[in-house]
Amino acid sequence: MALTAEDVMLVQPRARVLAMPEYHPPLAGRDALRLDFNENTSAPSPRVFAKLQQLSAEGLTIYPERTPVERIVAAHFGLASEQVLLTNGVDEAIHLIACTFLDEGDEALVWVPSFFMYDVSISLMTPGLKRVQSDDSLAFPRERFLAGITPKTKLIIVASPNNPTGATVAREDLLAIAAAAPHAVLMVDEAYFHFHGETMLDEVNCIPNLLVTRTFSKAYGLANLRVGMVVGDARLLGFLRKASSPYNVNGVALAVLPEAIADEDYLNWYVAQMRAGRERAFAELAKLGVPTWPSAANFVLMDIGPKHKQLVEAMRERGVLLRDRSSDPGCDGYVRLTIGLEDQMTQGLAALKDSLDAIGWTPAEARHARGTSSEGHEYEYE
Amino acid sequence: MALTAEDVMLVQPRARVLAMPEYHPPLAGRDALRLDFNENTSAPSPRVFAKLQQLSAEGLTIYPERTPVERIVAAHFGLASEQVLLTNGVDEAIHLIACTFLDEGDEALVWVPSFFMYDVSISLMTPGLKRVQSDDSLAFPRERFLAGITPKTKLIIVASPNNPTGATVAREDLLAIAAAAPHAVLMVDEAYFHFHGETMLDEVNCIPNLLVTRTFSKAYGLANLRVGMVVGDARLLGFLRKASSPYNVNGVALAVLPEAIADEDYLNWYVAQMRAGRERAFAELAKLGVPTWPSAANFVLMDIGPKHKQLVEAMRERGVLLRDRSSDPGCDGYVRLTIGLEDQMTQGLAALKDSLDAIGWTPAEARHARGTSSEGHEYEYE
Repeated sequence: MALTAEDVMLVQPRARVLAMPEYHPPLAGRDALRLDFNENTSAPSPRVFAKLQQLSAEGLTIYPERTPVERIVAAHFGLASEQVLLTNGVDEAIHLIACTFLDEGDEALVWVPSFFMYDVSISLMTPGLKRVQSDDSLAFPRERFLAGITPKTKLIIVASPNNPTGATVAREDLLAIAAAAPHAVLMVDEAYFHFHGETMLDEVNCIPNLLVTRTFSKAYGLANLRVGMVVGDARLLGFLRKASSPYNVNGVALAVLPEAIADEDYLNWYVAQMRAGRERAFAELAKLGVPTWPSAANFVLMDIGPKHKQLVEAMRERGVLLRDRSSDPGCDGYVRLTIGLEDQMTQGLAALKDSLDAIGWTPAEARHARGTSSEGHEYEYE
Repeated sequence: MALTAEDVMLVQPRARVLAMPEYHPPLAGRDALRLDFNENTSAPSPRVFAKLQQLSAEGLTIYPERTPVERIVAAHFGLASEQVLLTNGVDEAIHLIACTFLDEGDEALVWVPSFFMYDVSISLMTPGLKRVQSDDSLAFPRERFLAGITPKTKLIIVASPNNPTGATVAREDLLAIAAAAPHAVLMVDEAYFHFHGETMLDEVNCIPNLLVTRTFSKAYGLANLRVGMVVGDARLLGFLRKASSPYNVNGVALAVLPEAIADEDYLNWYVAQMRAGRERAFAELAKLGVPTWPSAANFVLMDIGPKHKQLVEAMRERGVLLRDRSSDPGCDGYVRLTIGLEDQMTQGLAALKDSLDAIGWTPAEARHARGTSSEGHEYEYE
């Protein structure tokens, strides 16, 4: 589009902002069974809700104090409070990490498909985003990823388990990346940690360039309240703290967070529900002939093929939300199913069987059955 | 400090981050009469608290939807929803504006003393921060400020009423700034608007480089929940929206905000309390011989002189918090008193009289009585 004389007179943003992709999650109209956003599909610990009901009206007027809650969270995870920064969801953590470490011209390395907010925050700071595409196995492309590290690499982000695939990255691979790029920050996003069980949290005492992020939006069920954390060497955390507002996390999240982390019985129950639901989903999908990938998270990616939109629509008509991931790199035809509680899985899987019938889907339509590779696939983020 | 060989091996943040100042508000131990942070000293509208108590446990697990609430807020203020972005407090608005518009090397112009987060967010993006210092009147230095605009100026931030002074900037001066710098964004921070009554909000339809910020932390009493807004031309707002997370504002803030803005009776009552309390504070301070400056906000800046720390301590011993502003540029010896409700003012002003007696303060100690100018004053932010 050519600039008009008027455009030239108008104030312009940074060139990076003009070049940035946009993230528009399909949020509207979610009054249904929420198997679309990998949220907790039930409710958080009853202790969280009890705490919420104890909040005072006067307390709403007082600026929130993050530091005392960081001490509690750090102690819970066996860390020093200097090693923990609470953030306004992991979204803010990603943004702060990009703003703190990425200069224009630096390179940042990510594995795709993965969480789109990495692209957004990195693109705000540098055009040097390098995406290493999974092959059709959606597994971590270890050798190609390591080969992507250059002297200019300043930030590396790896989610394990990954979203939207559920694939994991072995601890030894993450250690190899950190060692291969001591000049870069390695951010390991453990948003879905609880459904997998492997963590790098203990390594923050040993690896000076490692940051681990955790959200309280998934297993803990606090997505509405916006709270996550970054954990790492106190030196790196000091830089992030400088760039952050002292009031970045709201007081309701800070009030209930100690209750959420203390209730391990609730967490164990919820995670057990997810593991059981995931196994059930795999079994049922196998019966229906829907190809899937191994998942260590609270969701399963399904290979539907050309009828991906029809399936999502048919499910919505039956009161169940799914997330179409077709516009993710290499995911054409793939649809994601979030795991719910036992009765929700009964409802969701029945609706899925019914929907596949209704749209006349057959296993031969799956991309794998048709032998359509993702290589050279043109994609556009939604 | 010389770099060691080990430092050189460690990953470094951007140079801007190393050079940034830090903001450490003295938050700890605020279980007293809060006349220190310019918060609402009472409670928000009863409708806000009623809404809070209606929240469901399941709702806590759902990602917040900002857009429908932006529509309600926009309609309330007579704006299009494209002209409104809700933010995680005005702190996030300042940060997003700096990230969106400031490239390394751009200049940003602010008036000091003012809100310190402008310095923090600007310094994250460019070393080009230019501060125009008020003279001892603490009034807006119109001519020197306009003279500070250069072709490199990309962002101008002016708070009216200003904090910590309470000084205002005339509408015609703000219009002159916007006109003198069409190549720059002019952000007018109206955090304390309600206690003054003059706004630039109606100008966003006419001035393409104007952004107006409002917080819901002050008159509305929602500081704990973290919500503010940026209002401006849809074109500028579009850039800011790109840089923002779709989930930047938590669901509790989004749930109660429509209640807060709808209850105009509450707002009028609270603002009337503040105006009456402010007049009473001015009258009592005049009786005590404490020099002050005109204030259009919910606070009054007092000229105490060398005993500023002793006064804050004596007040704390009497259960009343004040904010020492001595480390702000040009504010050596100045202490800020937030206005409270009628009974809180009775308590606060009695404690002030008592404290001034206890520390043996006399009007001759005020900086103005001693004829000490702020010119050439060395300052360091706390």
